[in-house]
Amino acid sequence: MKPVCLVIGAGAGIGGNVAKRFAMDGYHAVLCRRTNQDGLNAMIGQIEAAGGTASGHLLNAVADGEIEERIEAVEAEVGPIEVLVYNLGAQIGNRPLAATDYKAFERCWRLGAFGLFRAASAVLPRMEARGSGTILVTSATAAMRGNDGQHAHAAAMGGRRMLCQSLNAEYGPKGIHICHFLIDGAVDAPDTLGRMLGPDKFQELREKRGMEHDGLMLPERIADTYFHVAQQHRSTWTQELDMRSFGDSPWYNN
Amino acid sequence: MKPVCLVIGAGAGIGGNVAKRFAMDGYHAVLCRRTNQDGLNAMIGQIEAAGGTASGHLLNAVADGEIEERIEAVEAEVGPIEVLVYNLGAQIGNRPLAATDYKAFERCWRLGAFGLFRAASAVLPRMEARGSGTILVTSATAAMRGNDGQHAHAAAMGGRRMLCQSLNAEYGPKGIHICHFLIDGAVDAPDTLGRMLGPDKFQELREKRGMEHDGLMLPERIADTYFHVAQQHRSTWTQELDMRSFGDSPWYNN
Amino acid sequence: MKPVCLVIGAGAGIGGNVAKRFAMDGYHAVLCRRTNQDGLNAMIGQIEAAGGTASGHLLNAVADGEIEERIEAVEAEVGPIEVLVYNLGAQIGNRPLAATDYKAFERCWRLGAFGLFRAASAVLPRMEARGSGTILVTSATAAMRGNDGQHAHAAAMGGRRMLCQSLNAEYGPKGIHICHFLIDGAVDAPDTLGRMLGPDKFQELREKRGMEHDGLMLPERIADTYFHVAQQHRSTWTQELDMRSFGDSPWYNN
Amino acid sequence: MKPVCLVIGAGAGIGGNVAKRFAMDGYHAVLCRRTNQDGLNAMIGQIEAAGGTASGHLLNAVADGEIEERIEAVEAEVGPIEVLVYNLGAQIGNRPLAATDYKAFERCWRLGAFGLFRAASAVLPRMEARGSGTILVTSATAAMRGNDGQHAHAAAMGGRRMLCQSLNAEYGPKGIHICHFLIDGAVDAPDTLGRMLGPDKFQELREKRGMEHDGLMLPERIADTYFHVAQQHRSTWTQELDMRSFGDSPWYNN
Repeated sequence: MKPVCLVIGAGAGIGGNVAKRFAMDGYHAVLCRRTNQDGLNAMIGQIEAAGGTASGHLLNAVADGEIEERIEAVEAEVGPIEVLVYNLGAQIGNRPLAATDYKAFERCWRLGAFGLFRAASAVLPRMEARGSGTILVTSATAAMRGNDGQHAHAAAMGGRRMLCQSLNAEYGPKGIHICHFLIDGAVDAPDTLGRMLGPDKFQELREKRGMEHDGLMLPERIADTYFHVAQQHRSTWTQELDMRSFGDSPWYNN
Repeated sequence: MKPVCLVIGAGAGIGGNVAKRFAMDGYHAVLCRRTNQDGLNAMIGQIEAAGGTASGHLLNAVADGEIEERIEAVEAEVGPIEVLVYNLGAQIGNRPLAATDYKAFERCWRLGAFGLFRAASAVLPRMEARGSGTILVTSATAAMRGNDGQHAHAAAMGGRRMLCQSLNAEYGPKGIHICHFLIDGAVDAPDTLGRMLGPDKFQELREKRGMEHDGLMLPERIADTYFHVAQQHRSTWTQELDMRSFGDSPWYNN
Repeated sequence: MKPVCLVIGAGAGIGGNVAKRFAMDGYHAVLCRRTNQDGLNAMIGQIEAAGGTASGHLLNAVADGEIEERIEAVEAEVGPIEVLVYNLGAQIGNRPLAATDYKAFERCWRLGAFGLFRAASAVLPRMEARGSGTILVTSATAAMRGNDGQHAHAAAMGGRRMLCQSLNAEYGPKGIHICHFLIDGAVDAPDTLGRMLGPDKFQELREKRGMEHDGLMLPERIADTYFHVAQQHRSTWTQELDMRSFGDSPWYNN
Repeated sequence: MKPVCLVIGAGAGIGGNVAKRFAMDGYHAVLCRRTNQDGLNAMIGQIEAAGGTASGHLLNAVADGEIEERIEAVEAEVGPIEVLVYNLGAQIGNRPLAATDYKAFERCWRLGAFGLFRAASAVLPRMEARGSGTILVTSATAAMRGNDGQHAHAAAMGGRRMLCQSLNAEYGPKGIHICHFLIDGAVDAPDTLGRMLGPDKFQELREKRGMEHDGLMLPERIADTYFHVAQQHRSTWTQELDMRSFGDSPWYNN
């Protein structure tokens, strides 16, 4: 039986590419995303066409119980989750305080921090019983520092990072590896950045920063590092790393 | 008319002492705490006996609308809030993940991050209209890093810090000063630390770390620094500082 | 006998103003600067005219033994140094790597890190014998992060910050307080910024960012916070704080 | 012609293993270490026996010109340096301030910061002319925070980290990748840790923390991550990551 890699937030950017990367190396990938059954099917089809195995589900991460039920079902029906990838963003664009209502602030927290807490609470007792497991957490610049218009996003992602550190403190010694990936730049991801900017601006950005596909971060190459981290020997675990494009300034210079 | 200093979280530790400090220097202090009307009255009485003016209210910060209504009432009935002190803790003691339920995680967030967001959303438009104002935010070690048993607390306080940075980014240029006080040690505060440890352990800690009142942080001396920061010239604002007792190790050495 | 405040790096910006601030509150200020005996005399004259006492010396901090000899002489001839202010900058302007020669790199280190180590090595045994003392260290954005053209400066100032933390770890429990002041903006200091930019650009900056003296950081107001920190109760010491003008972006947003 | 990987600090721990890892994947490894020609020959022999190619030199990194001359010679005689690994430690054990003399402080800086600056100054113009290159820098807990007895070490390593960030800021956009590896734990390295602790204590540590080779960090597994980072696509470069054993507390919890 193949080990299972469950991806929560499997769009066409980092999530889908990480699922594919693990599937190409012997994992069964379970892809979850909120909407777009056709897109989901297409990604599964791609993985299968390339010789891997995958399955998928629509999942609303802010709805009560959906994350927990999915984890339970995957464990019961597919197999033990060896790697859980938490790849839900909480970006709502830059908004001044007056335009950030309570609902937006809470929603960011539900996606940014609480959803990870729920997923961890559901999967970690199972991993602990098995003595191993990996949680890979996609994170963002806003986890490192607040900024103009980032009230809701930064509060959520700052919480995400601190939660990852707390999870490592308890579960590292139990043989479970949590890694916080600081994705400190724009990803070439039509589902998220593309939708936020609109097709014209997104294309403009790709061209302006492109330099032969190097300006926007290539999600299939991000996936290589996710896979590497999941394979690290347990005496050499990385718990935090940053990634950005060569031409980009890091968060502390921007 | 005196300028107003509103303290949300005015127990017998930092909050009450900060209220008193501002009242001694010409502010009218408004003290809010969740419970204990007698304790509240006693603190107001102390301030008045020392020649200051103060008023107080019980306030449940996690209840819908209570923070907002209090800010509105103070502005309408007492005067413009020049300084808002957000002094609500979100500590629930060290708890392993399995003992941290969703309710506890959410409650920490409501006190740690959302409550500050609500207070800021209510008071900042008023401060912006006046072109000045100060928000002093008490924070904790857990805002800097997660740790064993700190899942809920660190996620909440990490969010608090990032929110302070975001608020500064938008409101600093508008002449409003937000400062994040990292209280990186145990405070001599019978209402919180005392209650968490119980009277025997609290007394034991006071004696063990006492060295003539120097081991636990003295809240009346913390209040001096809150007051100093609120008086800084706007060309020299401090947005983050740490405080701990001379014998204590900082968060990055602990 | 007055307590002594020794300022190493007492130009017309932060150093001179800190000296004056302490002298106005009962300290004897000893001002040291590398050049400009006339400027030094003028600052001493100002302090004396305002009712304080001060003395001064030219001091080349990178020359062997000069810092140590000055500390020894002050202790022998003036009195115990209660507060030492290390206010030497190591800024050499932005320089690409190719324009940063070994000599510049080493000089930055001598001013940025080694000079503080020498001063600390000379004064701390004396403070330790007395069971009290304070070292106030002016630092810069480059202590928090490297940046383009900051090779020599950031390497030096990053070392300065780590050294402050190490000094606190050893000497805090002995009752000696070290504080690292992150001056995260441009100071209205004709001797340093003024000389680096030249008179025209400096005046232009003052006007552009002025807004009634609020854009550039006012050194006499920075001095207020230095003085406050030196008076903190030892149960509530600040070891790191940042300061910047209200309109400025912090290092992590710039 | 094979690409060249030059390792400065190629002992039996991280350095030698990184050299071997690159040699196993098609690089010619050039190993430099200060002493022990026999140990050097043995490592080269191991690489060659495993089918790789390597050469080696004794090199005193604190001696004037030796780093620069070695880089020049390698470029002239072996080939373009594609990857430079700067793996010199600056640890001198915990020493109180009184036991840290100027010579020790300076020596730490020469190894910790200045040596990297010299190596970067020598190799980066060549890499820039070629439009590509990688510098992998081994770093230590002390780069993140000072601590008791770490005066010299932390000042040096804090400088090292800030220098890496400055180098990235200038050379990243030119296609050159610098990565700072925070080795936040004890490495199973007989040449350094073993020598510092002595054979008995080292063996005791291996056994106590061993858990089948998992307590001390395995340098051959650290090398896997060095190699991975050097292969990252330039749109997804990691500039900072941490590594520690699963059972170890990170620097911010210790």
